[in-house]
Amino acid sequence: MPDMYLSSYNISNIDVTLRDGGYRNQFNFSVDYAAQHVQMLAQAGIEWIEVGYRNGAFKPIDDIGLTGLSPNLYLEALREATSRPCLCVMAHSKNISTNEIETMREKGVDMIRFCADIHRIPLTLEYVRLSKALGFTVCFNLTRISQQSVKALANQAEQAVAAGADVVYLADSNGSMTPDQVRKLVTVVRGIGQCDVGFHAHDNLGLSMSNSIAAVQAGASFIDSSLRGMGKGAGNLTLELWLGFLNREFGIKHYDYASLLDQVDLLEKSDAESRPMQPLDDLILGLFDLSIDHRERIHANTTRVSQMLANAKA
Amino acid sequence: MPDMYLSSYNISNIDVTLRDGGYRNQFNFSVDYAAQHVQMLAQAGIEWIEVGYRNGAFKPIDDIGLTGLSPNLYLEALREATSRPCLCVMAHSKNISTNEIETMREKGVDMIRFCADIHRIPLTLEYVRLSKALGFTVCFNLTRISQQSVKALANQAEQAVAAGADVVYLADSNGSMTPDQVRKLVTVVRGIGQCDVGFHAHDNLGLSMSNSIAAVQAGASFIDSSLRGMGKGAGNLTLELWLGFLNREFGIKHYDYASLLDQVDLLEKSDAESRPMQPLDDLILGLFDLSIDHRERIHANTTRVSQMLANAKA
Repeated sequence: MPDMYLSSYNISNIDVTLRDGGYRNQFNFSVDYAAQHVQMLAQAGIEWIEVGYRNGAFKPIDDIGLTGLSPNLYLEALREATSRPCLCVMAHSKNISTNEIETMREKGVDMIRFCADIHRIPLTLEYVRLSKALGFTVCFNLTRISQQSVKALANQAEQAVAAGADVVYLADSNGSMTPDQVRKLVTVVRGIGQCDVGFHAHDNLGLSMSNSIAAVQAGASFIDSSLRGMGKGAGNLTLELWLGFLNREFGIKHYDYASLLDQVDLLEKSDAESRPMQPLDDLILGLFDLSIDHRERIHANTTRVSQMLANAKA
Repeated sequence: MPDMYLSSYNISNIDVTLRDGGYRNQFNFSVDYAAQHVQMLAQAGIEWIEVGYRNGAFKPIDDIGLTGLSPNLYLEALREATSRPCLCVMAHSKNISTNEIETMREKGVDMIRFCADIHRIPLTLEYVRLSKALGFTVCFNLTRISQQSVKALANQAEQAVAAGADVVYLADSNGSMTPDQVRKLVTVVRGIGQCDVGFHAHDNLGLSMSNSIAAVQAGASFIDSSLRGMGKGAGNLTLELWLGFLNREFGIKHYDYASLLDQVDLLEKSDAESRPMQPLDDLILGLFDLSIDHRERIHANTTRVSQMLANAKA
């Protein structure tokens, strides 16, 4: 086994099915499904399970479902589903209050992940400090990293670590990065020290596995993935494949595969939107490093052009 | 750009949709589809297009379709579809005669790929020599490489190169290999010299992209892939994603993406079995390094057990 891989023994996996997978079904997971998901993945030995956004995504979504809000009753139900300290919630600082952060801790949430927001840096850092004081494991997630300079990313990471963040996450939101770029960026953030580095992949170019391997080789110790890769657009790294890789490459056998595969089966039966897909428009977005917003714009534009042509004919 | 990647500029891609994709539809592509496929992929700049098996796969398949046989009239139609020297046929030495090899050359086939067969080594090597003399570009494909010793593989490769093979291909038929294993094996075959090295991936563990990248890093210059990854079991490396990677990582822009995406669209409309999939049973096969035959056995066994249980209840 190559030396560069040794750090892989310390990988912590975060399952993001209920949160990022929510973009596939308007966050409409039932509380029953979510509770069983948490129970089974905890049983499988997955280190962390992200159960949703608190109070919405970055952009408002009409009629957003349960895992887009993560209300108190939902968190209570999940806390009852497992005694392991593995429950994680993601939040945008603009959507929540200090009071809500305290409430989430009281409800038994173990990890909180804040998305970096360049328009609200002081507020987000204040929330990082508060969350750390409350006993959360705190992640600071840099998103759309392909569209920011290395210097800007490093600067935000340094501030988050100074505020007490345990993990700085790099999210390739556009799914446009290559292994070489990931390796370089993880190395830069590793250089800051005093934090773990995480990587969150999107599969637009089919590189979610390659990029996650590159991240681990460069020293990342937190990796996001989801069952069936269920996630926004082309989806995320696929958890069941990733564990297969860890097993084959490093002989890591401590995950309970049976519980995981049972849950894949249940997810597929409960939600058709979990199926693997590789839409061509997401491939194009990845190639040109465009965000998911552009897909919506392109489709809207196509519709407008069709209407104009129809009107011209009429 | 890292030095280790420089050889990537010389990559030759072989599209295997019509051949390996045939395992998804009993090789039932129409001659019209196949002719357009060849025309469009040649137009896209794909270096080689494998159009089928000649006279069947390794094991007999009942009612095998057109691209499982590649009869003369079919080859003539494809030769008319493009003037580029890009037509490739795969053959098992036990299925064909010297006469047929000569006929394929007369019909305008440019490349022939022989699967290694440990029970017919002299015959296969004789066919390699004949094909080379006839002017074919000749590939010698080592299959199920995960189940053979490095020494045995190197020995066969040396004999093939001595017989005149231009390319020695390594096929991870079980989709069970990791990037590190691929890198080591490609390096061994590169060491033989006087041949190019090719790699053929299967995606059971989601590693088709990672393993192909590792192969190129170790010096492989021929890579197999298919539209939508259409191929046996979990499928192959996905051609449209692979070209995206080459574009993003190396700035390779000489492929005509529009022709390729048009053909993806036509393939999806003409054959539902081309859709990306990631069956759990193929993941398990990859994890345990079992061949596709075991999937059939497991399913047959499951059926028998179900029948026994039903009989016991009755």
